[in-house]
Amino acid sequence: MELSHLIQVARGRRPADLLLRNAQVIDVFNHEIVTADVALAGDRIAGLAPAGTRGAGRPRAGPRVTYDATETHDLEGAYLAPGLIDGHVHIESSMVNVPEFARAVVPHGTTTVITDPHEIANVLGMSGIRYMLQAAKYNPLSVYVMASSCVPASPMESAGAELSAYDLETLMQDKWVLGLAEMMNAPGLLASDPDVLAKLSAAGPRPIDGHAPGVLGLDLNAYVAAGVRSDHECTTLEEAREKLQRGMAIMLREATGARNLADLLPLVTPQNARRFFFVTDDRNPLHLLSDGHIDSMVRQAIGLGLDPILALQLGSLNAAEYFGLRDCGAVAPGRVADLIVFDDLRAPRPRLVYRHGRLVARDGTMLPFERPEKLPALRSSINVPQNTLHFRIPAPAKQRRIRVIDVIPNQIITGAGEADASIQGGEAVTDPGRDLLKLAVIERHTGSGRIGLGFVRGFGLKFGALASTVAHDAHNIIVVGASDEAMRAAVEIILEMQGGLVAVAGREVTRLSLPIAGLMSAEPLSVVADGLRALLHAAHRMGTTLDDPFMALAFMALSVVPALKLTDRGLLDVTRFQLVPLFID
Amino acid sequence: MELSHLIQVARGRRPADLLLRNAQVIDVFNHEIVTADVALAGDRIAGLAPAGTRGAGRPRAGPRVTYDATETHDLEGAYLAPGLIDGHVHIESSMVNVPEFARAVVPHGTTTVITDPHEIANVLGMSGIRYMLQAAKYNPLSVYVMASSCVPASPMESAGAELSAYDLETLMQDKWVLGLAEMMNAPGLLASDPDVLAKLSAAGPRPIDGHAPGVLGLDLNAYVAAGVRSDHECTTLEEAREKLQRGMAIMLREATGARNLADLLPLVTPQNARRFFFVTDDRNPLHLLSDGHIDSMVRQAIGLGLDPILALQLGSLNAAEYFGLRDCGAVAPGRVADLIVFDDLRAPRPRLVYRHGRLVARDGTMLPFERPEKLPALRSSINVPQNTLHFRIPAPAKQRRIRVIDVIPNQIITGAGEADASIQGGEAVTDPGRDLLKLAVIERHTGSGRIGLGFVRGFGLKFGALASTVAHDAHNIIVVGASDEAMRAAVEIILEMQGGLVAVAGREVTRLSLPIAGLMSAEPLSVVADGLRALLHAAHRMGTTLDDPFMALAFMALSVVPALKLTDRGLLDVTRFQLVPLFID
Repeated sequence: MELSHLIQVARGRRPADLLLRNAQVIDVFNHEIVTADVALAGDRIAGLAPAGTRGAGRPRAGPRVTYDATETHDLEGAYLAPGLIDGHVHIESSMVNVPEFARAVVPHGTTTVITDPHEIANVLGMSGIRYMLQAAKYNPLSVYVMASSCVPASPMESAGAELSAYDLETLMQDKWVLGLAEMMNAPGLLASDPDVLAKLSAAGPRPIDGHAPGVLGLDLNAYVAAGVRSDHECTTLEEAREKLQRGMAIMLREATGARNLADLLPLVTPQNARRFFFVTDDRNPLHLLSDGHIDSMVRQAIGLGLDPILALQLGSLNAAEYFGLRDCGAVAPGRVADLIVFDDLRAPRPRLVYRHGRLVARDGTMLPFERPEKLPALRSSINVPQNTLHFRIPAPAKQRRIRVIDVIPNQIITGAGEADASIQGGEAVTDPGRDLLKLAVIERHTGSGRIGLGFVRGFGLKFGALASTVAHDAHNIIVVGASDEAMRAAVEIILEMQGGLVAVAGREVTRLSLPIAGLMSAEPLSVVADGLRALLHAAHRMGTTLDDPFMALAFMALSVVPALKLTDRGLLDVTRFQLVPLFID
Repeated sequence: MELSHLIQVARGRRPADLLLRNAQVIDVFNHEIVTADVALAGDRIAGLAPAGTRGAGRPRAGPRVTYDATETHDLEGAYLAPGLIDGHVHIESSMVNVPEFARAVVPHGTTTVITDPHEIANVLGMSGIRYMLQAAKYNPLSVYVMASSCVPASPMESAGAELSAYDLETLMQDKWVLGLAEMMNAPGLLASDPDVLAKLSAAGPRPIDGHAPGVLGLDLNAYVAAGVRSDHECTTLEEAREKLQRGMAIMLREATGARNLADLLPLVTPQNARRFFFVTDDRNPLHLLSDGHIDSMVRQAIGLGLDPILALQLGSLNAAEYFGLRDCGAVAPGRVADLIVFDDLRAPRPRLVYRHGRLVARDGTMLPFERPEKLPALRSSINVPQNTLHFRIPAPAKQRRIRVIDVIPNQIITGAGEADASIQGGEAVTDPGRDLLKLAVIERHTGSGRIGLGFVRGFGLKFGALASTVAHDAHNIIVVGASDEAMRAAVEIILEMQGGLVAVAGREVTRLSLPIAGLMSAEPLSVVADGLRALLHAAHRMGTTLDDPFMALAFMALSVVPALKLTDRGLLDVTRFQLVPLFID
């Protein structure tokens, strides 16, 4: 967009490329609704003018519209608002790659996302982040990146890569990288860990996002003083109020596994609303398909009593301002022409979506778009020597008391339980009758052959095995099963698919291939959702009592959430942050 | 401030350098008043903690305060708010240099100003701006600069320098330069003048301030589309509302000669308040002394009905956010410890002022501070060959009808009048009886000897002359007089002083020396104010009916304000933007 052209279109001296006539413009600055024609030039909004009354079929009747245009869309009094912004999302959680993610969320009115690619970064490091940056191009969605601050999550996990402050400094030079992503290592920060401080300093004057569940009081002072200026982990009003007072922006989150909007919304007032915006963090394919994206949060907030203009502002301008995206987030001259059109102010459902001045989605469906270049190639992320695959657990003489991970339904924390192992032939074996299943984490990045083994209670499988390469944060292969044979079969299918999810029940195999870093499919969201549904169905037939056993499985290896977890290095007592033996002396 | 130290103080693991106890903290984020102790570490706020109740004299009674500190100030329940910010000020208008300006405004609670040094830039160009940047160091005031966009104001004035886009790009590299100052050349912008576009582009992603009185409709669209995102020239609610809707921040201005706060304040609501902040633009010494600075606007806004917390927010956080000063504008961890203490929420008068963690003013008086280096040297800004000083106006044969500049009291616009000249000895001469005084503008920068001559009506001097080197925007020497002799004497005193203001009434001479670029004194504000008062007194004794004839004089040469003006090149018809002869055919 040449500036001179934009100026001359704005003045009405040259025809606009597109004129959106008869719009009820949501003015997120003055909190009014303004009837106007909106002229676009290239990817920008050129200007607003009082709406003309000339109908398309009556070219010479009524007063002339203020702007001439090459093309005109008559919005016939529909609402026109800025495109929606997701302020914090891990695209990998949608299990689709960036172009398919765009196809899924743009029809819901999302035109900009700020993503933290820390899942793929744990697998592929800088190559993974570069892949996301490159895959984000040429889609009808602006994808900004926050550089992942905590890869790996802890030294107790074997991730595929490590990002140093030096790497982050390099990333900051990319114009699509806005700052430092969620600083999850609050203990390191509070301890003035030099690596953490170097990462904070790599951000320079750029925004630094937080992730500090329950960090309050003096520790919160320190966390904020270090430069962290947002949080998306508040679960109570009191926590959010204190963080707000300390100068943090509060990201209101509705993730599949963590829904905080209803709890936190009562804190929002016209006086403080600028400090809030919407984020989805992690939404799985089923959730995205059923509810939508940021639009669902706008509707939910309005349903809970928030003024609709305020709700739309939280969904647009507020995130733009927090991230310093000056040309984004409003229907105003010079801003990018990212716009949504809808009919019901009490429940906005984008009927038309414009991105960078072009109509890209209509009635919930993406219009065709072409990506002028192929997605970049990625190296395989599965590197496991097949001859190392065994799950035998020799039992020491005279010991049968073991540590057991207790699943807590719909939570990512686990219980640290105990049980008497079933011993057969000198080995501790699975015992589905007592719901004592074997759990294994297989290092998949470096071909080390390292396998961590343990027992878990709560999955409830009567037979077969479930395996996955989605296992936060290191994303090694994780497998739970009622027999070693089923576990081995499941992992072999994972290797064959080069990553994904699988349920093995005898000869019946249900699978979802996620070949992109073992995290994402190249298929459309609906295909992936179908695959996931089939997997859940299979798992339930196998006897599991969990709503989503794959999501439960995905958090069994996360080394930073209490109490007892399993990594490829063995059982981890997270509270004491040390490896512990399976058998109790 | 080492980050690790700040973190450890914030956690309470090391003693704070200073603890402000028992404060009622103005929370500009959540719009509450919070009782707290505030711990400082170096120049930063480390943290807030619930106020302890331990009195200074009862060291072992009551609960312990949360923070230990090397030094403690008990605020005894007084209010504590962020230091005030002036979002747009020409420091030169105070007629004192930066250290003395700091001494004048810091006791009023101003801890940060964003200045456009375009007066000194018109005289000394880049050297002038560098001088201001350097003079701004080591004072207890943060002085950020917006790079002057329109030097000179027009090609019809002979300024001492010209700033190109190339110069502005260089300035943008300075960490104290935040963006591009008021883009006064709206016509050039609207015409897509390549020089103007190059200057806009020099700002990159930085803020660009506007100056667009009366620019509305499609022209406003174009002006904003080009990237201009603020305006301080709104005079009516309707104008401000339209600019607000287009995405501009509205700077509420109370300058000595342009007071808009009361007119615009009704537009401010809790919903849109974030888009407003306070600026003084131009306040002369008398105004600063009598009313104060941004604190006077806070009080005025509260008096007009604005919620006090909102008023304080307009005076701090809002400007900080507009300019991207993330570490400024709030009482919160990690922010600079710029703080004011006051007792009356309905009329805040800063009793204590902290800047960068140190107490710098108390009870309206600056505490002593030392500047570790001398002010930089400046070359002389007065370069006039004395033998060129004459004011004779030969009259063409048979012509006596002349153009006359009509002063309009308290306005910077002038009328384009006419009169019959008084002719003596073939020359047009002054005629105080008809209030027809001679006006001369003497080019002072390059020694060209160029003098523009004309007549002015409305000063009302009965005898003597007034001269000044403050003459917007080129700041040539301007002199008005009842006789050529008095005019010559006045200008000779100006040359002797190397710039300033003078009133010559026979042998009685009243003078104010402004040797810094002919614009500023190195004396304290009160001394300069005394000088100005004496000058106004003298001028009134000489018969002038104007409140402030020196301010009127200062705008007689401004080539961009209608209708008839005088530059060193001659009489200028601003409406047609061309030079016109004195005598009318």
